[in-house]
Amino acid sequence: MPSDVPPAARKEVATAVRSALAKHGYADLTTNLIAAETEKSEAFLYYHYDTKDELIAAFLRESVGWLEHRLERIEAEDPDSRLRALCDVLLVADGDETTARVHIAVMELLAHAPYNETLRDPLITYQCYVRDAIASEISRGIEQGTYEEIDPEATASFIHMVLDGSTGSVLALEMDDVGRDVRNRLSAYIDGFRREEAS
Amino acid sequence: MPSDVPPAARKEVATAVRSALAKHGYADLTTNLIAAETEKSEAFLYYHYDTKDELIAAFLRESVGWLEHRLERIEAEDPDSRLRALCDVLLVADGDETTARVHIAVMELLAHAPYNETLRDPLITYQCYVRDAIASEISRGIEQGTYEEIDPEATASFIHMVLDGSTGSVLALEMDDVGRDVRNRLSAYIDGFRREEAS
Repeated sequence: MPSDVPPAARKEVATAVRSALAKHGYADLTTNLIAAETEKSEAFLYYHYDTKDELIAAFLRESVGWLEHRLERIEAEDPDSRLRALCDVLLVADGDETTARVHIAVMELLAHAPYNETLRDPLITYQCYVRDAIASEISRGIEQGTYEEIDPEATASFIHMVLDGSTGSVLALEMDDVGRDVRNRLSAYIDGFRREEAS
Repeated sequence: MPSDVPPAARKEVATAVRSALAKHGYADLTTNLIAAETEKSEAFLYYHYDTKDELIAAFLRESVGWLEHRLERIEAEDPDSRLRALCDVLLVADGDETTARVHIAVMELLAHAPYNETLRDPLITYQCYVRDAIASEISRGIEQGTYEEIDPEATASFIHMVLDGSTGSVLALEMDDVGRDVRNRLSAYIDGFRREEAS
């Protein structure tokens, strides 16, 4: 992991990788295409990162921070509203084509993980961060008496898989009926573990 | 779509594509690597299929038939047992490395769908087949009084997304704890729409 890149440059590089992944996906991505998305030169990228995959790993590590910022910007304070807002963020808003393409590219990265050690570790870190963020709102909901005494981790994993699974059918294949059904059923699923007195 | 390939040869080609996808994934796949998995020559493949993607589309169309056969072989007759068995098939058994790699490769194909018309249509057909197979068992369960009056299509889409979402974390990243949690929560989710008198 390149630790000698100044934070501002690291963020700029990660933003460039994000744009390039949204435009080209992973398979066709080159360092040249990443350099085209930033003011940094290809020489700068190669000086700090040995390979295309090192650049993508840097993007994935930065993505954890971006998601953290998105979650901090959720205004609601009660865990139930926060959990639902978090699911909305992770399902991607209609019309946000760039974010949809980034999610599709991350799905492509997941498909390469068994063959690619450079990608695997930051992908596991990212997936754990998402699961823990969901679990944390569920735990707060239980503590505050909004939710029943369910297993926060296991329930978070289940919800996380619904969100991740939507990337293929809803974002990549644009099966809009599936998208509507999933939002609707996910909301009903969360209703299902609200305490009745909290409803 | 090549309609002039005899059914036996079509099946043989699809099996070869399946093996090649399990070994190499999609990005690195070549017609040569597919030919290496069959007794058919690369010339035979090129005679009947114009591109690597035509071969993969043929594999996807054949996959619908394979899944149909797998489902016919489920011995249980009651819809609740059949639905759970179907979920088990789609979650991939522990240790079935080849099928796991095929699922991972199909996830990779999904990531290419926005950029690739040859893959998109057969992927949509495949996804609809899976969703409809799940919905059909739910509908039978409702008719027979095992399940409550839920929306079969929407519930099937939700379950389908859980299964698809598992491919990344459970199969590609081998996050075994997530795998256990998802099987467990999915079973509880299905329990949740059983009528109490049916339990």
